[in-house]
Amino acid sequence: MADTVGFIGLGLMGRPMAKHLLAAGHRLIVHSRSRGPVDEVVAAGAREASSPAEVAKQATRIITMLPDSPDVEAVMAGPDGVFGALQPGTILIDMSSIDPSVAVRLAAQAATLGAVMLDAPVSGGEIGARSGTLSIMVGGDADAFAAVTPILHAMGNPERIIRIGEAGAGQLCKLCNQMVIGGTLAAVSEAFALARRAGVDPAAVREALLGGFAASRVLEVHGERILARNYTPGFRAALFAKDYRNVASTVAALDSAAPVSTVVQGLLSALIAGGRGDEDYSALATVLFELAGLE
Amino acid sequence: MADTVGFIGLGLMGRPMAKHLLAAGHRLIVHSRSRGPVDEVVAAGAREASSPAEVAKQATRIITMLPDSPDVEAVMAGPDGVFGALQPGTILIDMSSIDPSVAVRLAAQAATLGAVMLDAPVSGGEIGARSGTLSIMVGGDADAFAAVTPILHAMGNPERIIRIGEAGAGQLCKLCNQMVIGGTLAAVSEAFALARRAGVDPAAVREALLGGFAASRVLEVHGERILARNYTPGFRAALFAKDYRNVASTVAALDSAAPVSTVVQGLLSALIAGGRGDEDYSALATVLFELAGLE
Repeated sequence: MADTVGFIGLGLMGRPMAKHLLAAGHRLIVHSRSRGPVDEVVAAGAREASSPAEVAKQATRIITMLPDSPDVEAVMAGPDGVFGALQPGTILIDMSSIDPSVAVRLAAQAATLGAVMLDAPVSGGEIGARSGTLSIMVGGDADAFAAVTPILHAMGNPERIIRIGEAGAGQLCKLCNQMVIGGTLAAVSEAFALARRAGVDPAAVREALLGGFAASRVLEVHGERILARNYTPGFRAALFAKDYRNVASTVAALDSAAPVSTVVQGLLSALIAGGRGDEDYSALATVLFELAGLE
Repeated sequence: MADTVGFIGLGLMGRPMAKHLLAAGHRLIVHSRSRGPVDEVVAAGAREASSPAEVAKQATRIITMLPDSPDVEAVMAGPDGVFGALQPGTILIDMSSIDPSVAVRLAAQAATLGAVMLDAPVSGGEIGARSGTLSIMVGGDADAFAAVTPILHAMGNPERIIRIGEAGAGQLCKLCNQMVIGGTLAAVSEAFALARRAGVDPAAVREALLGGFAASRVLEVHGERILARNYTPGFRAALFAKDYRNVASTVAALDSAAPVSTVVQGLLSALIAGGRGDEDYSALATVLFELAGLE
């Protein structure tokens, strides 16, 4: 029979993910800060736990889906946290997008408590969470990954659930994912800005580029959003900027070099500073349009 | 019956393009600086002309496929050039990748001589030229474009032969194409560098990213080249850097903003300065690897 699964963090992503677990036949024990989402998931068949520690007492498979590193640290190692009540053999699956070095540290701490912690951030956004087709990038112990694969299958596309390497490798891969998306998005935006300055239709440019080596999902999907000026999220710019802060700290910590990502981070900061953090992250294009004196 | 076509510039790209025109039944009159390529295309059925002016006397459809702006200006407006011998109603098709402002100026000059000049740069590289599946981005008069479409079909993929706008729009679109490719390539390279610094397998990262929003032709094709360290061109870095110089001059001339492309241009310059201009442009990754202290 399907595992009992603990689930902590019922935000925009966590809620539909939890429901997919229920639909797949898992018993679910949930905890979240906000009342509404808990009621919603309990109504769908989950039981409620009063704290992360309570979740840890009732489940040996525990998923966390939280905004950033400090949230995951608090839920794990804070008061009434998971680490204080861990059952031996528990497998923790942190699906939040956080700093890889925090993932490594928490995994080491979990190991000293007789548990395994996997980092398993996702890509695909709210749409992917709702449709149960997320990409999942996993770091950590291979046997633990194999043991929880059926759980991950309930939320993600089986072909896109990939173990990347040891602890932290999933988070590292997620940062790579955001770097590639951000760099591509900025380049597409600059190309559209140049076309507009020249009086050339950026829609015709997009159409021509989609046929060749410049083709990408970003040009296809975000390119269309930018042309339509449809910046309803999607994925909020503020969260993308958070991921880029983790890119910057990780690049610095590892003495790597990422000059393009550094520029993209500056553009994202300008977007947030301009008060557009709640728009879709493809609104990054507006920063480049404004720099070029375009509406 | 198919048009008589003049063809000036039988380099790595021009040679296979000329042969496709012969194969499609066109009579071909060619001129090129180097003996070898001329002999090769003459052996395939073309006639030779002693100068660009001679080509212009014998053909009213003339293709140029040359390295850069000064080459096109010399062939058109220089001694024994095309402009000195133009027949009224001639349609010039410049398939070189040059500065859009030069394309606009030459088109205006051609118009005063009773001819039409289209800018029609291509994407797809030597492989696309050989297979006759180039993407062709066209700027200039719509009727002239319609008139020469059968000629372009002999060299390109009909679905990817697109009129972008007025004179210069094809060249502008080509610059946009290179900007998007270059930005994506640099971002992919930075992601691979970060993964390697973290001890994470970049091949696993590429595999995971191809399933999601970070997916692109660059990640797929150039990502694989980078992982295999296969920098045999393909498309020479020196030519890509030439296109980026045209990006820089055009961005500046139009008062646009392209901070990511500016960084990419600097990285390309480092690649050329390091003596790697004859390698494939995906060797850009080596610059980022070296910056990160990686082999």
